[in-house]
Amino acid sequence: MKIEIAKDIVRPHLTTARYEHSLRVAETAKELALLYGEKVEKAELAAVFHDYAKYRSRDELARWIVTSYLPKDLLDYHHELWHGPVAALLIEKEFGVKDIDIQNAIHYHTTGRAHMSNLEMIIFLADYIEPGRKFPGIDKVREMAKVDLVHACLMASANTIRFLMNKNTAIYPDTFHTYNDLIRRVNGGNH
Amino acid sequence: MKIEIAKDIVRPHLTTARYEHSLRVAETAKELALLYGEKVEKAELAAVFHDYAKYRSRDELARWIVTSYLPKDLLDYHHELWHGPVAALLIEKEFGVKDIDIQNAIHYHTTGRAHMSNLEMIIFLADYIEPGRKFPGIDKVREMAKVDLVHACLMASANTIRFLMNKNTAIYPDTFHTYNDLIRRVNGGNH
Repeated sequence: MKIEIAKDIVRPHLTTARYEHSLRVAETAKELALLYGEKVEKAELAAVFHDYAKYRSRDELARWIVTSYLPKDLLDYHHELWHGPVAALLIEKEFGVKDIDIQNAIHYHTTGRAHMSNLEMIIFLADYIEPGRKFPGIDKVREMAKVDLVHACLMASANTIRFLMNKNTAIYPDTFHTYNDLIRRVNGGNH
Repeated sequence: MKIEIAKDIVRPHLTTARYEHSLRVAETAKELALLYGEKVEKAELAAVFHDYAKYRSRDELARWIVTSYLPKDLLDYHHELWHGPVAALLIEKEFGVKDIDIQNAIHYHTTGRAHMSNLEMIIFLADYIEPGRKFPGIDKVREMAKVDLVHACLMASANTIRFLMNKNTAIYPDTFHTYNDLIRRVNGGNH
């Protein structure tokens, strides 16, 4: 699918602010794809679609989870975690976008998971560091993103866990698996 | 087993400093047991034995894990996590202490786990707050320990995860399960 067609599809489903966020994620993902030798078109497409299901109702998101292959334990955690997996499902159902790497990048953009591909890490990271984001410590992650994709994702993952613990929120298992996997990759197998 | 016999068994296996730590954990566990209506004798016995295997060699600890019912994935994580599970095994093998609640309290004293019993929480917490410990934020945990066992354990669990992330260390799954379970207990099922 051409990126301009994807943008036209996504735009009416999002608030203006959220749509502009998606465009910034696409621009950041493009830069990371060029830097780390991944396909720019895939990175942009995954980025444009990553929040496609963000404004579906909780009821609709839950229904897609219940009636599809998606993991049911999502329903035990905050509904903020549901829109990524559902978007990965819907872009195939509604628009025939059937590319497992793009779909995984969308599915896991909020939590990450163990053994992420480069494309998955690019979307996970681009969503975290796009220029509109303001998190504590984000500038260090942006600097690291220029030199080490895995280490930058580790920093984003650890910051996210700290943020969730400070809010007294339950943490989805994939979020922990992301941290443990990236720690091992950065430490070179030492633990 | 009488507590004085347990102390005589444990003493030669530990450094003086570690033995004194164990006595302070026993004293703290006794106070918590009285406060939360658990059996004082069980709490003291679990506390005295909790570090029993602390100075076994890494090779011996690994051998016990490999050749017993203990979970093999412990071997993929830091060896600091091995002495609790092995002690729970050895006190039964060597001294016939066969009490599943005491053994679980010893097994899980470092990581915790989901659905801990009160005795398990008492040992987990006593090990964290005994008067010799100095951690960032520990006084708040000590205050909470006087009024809410579950909430105090949650604070200890979150502090431990922060500590491990600051050290760039992989985190054993039970450590995360502890946090998620206690968050749900404290938040009353909301997430």
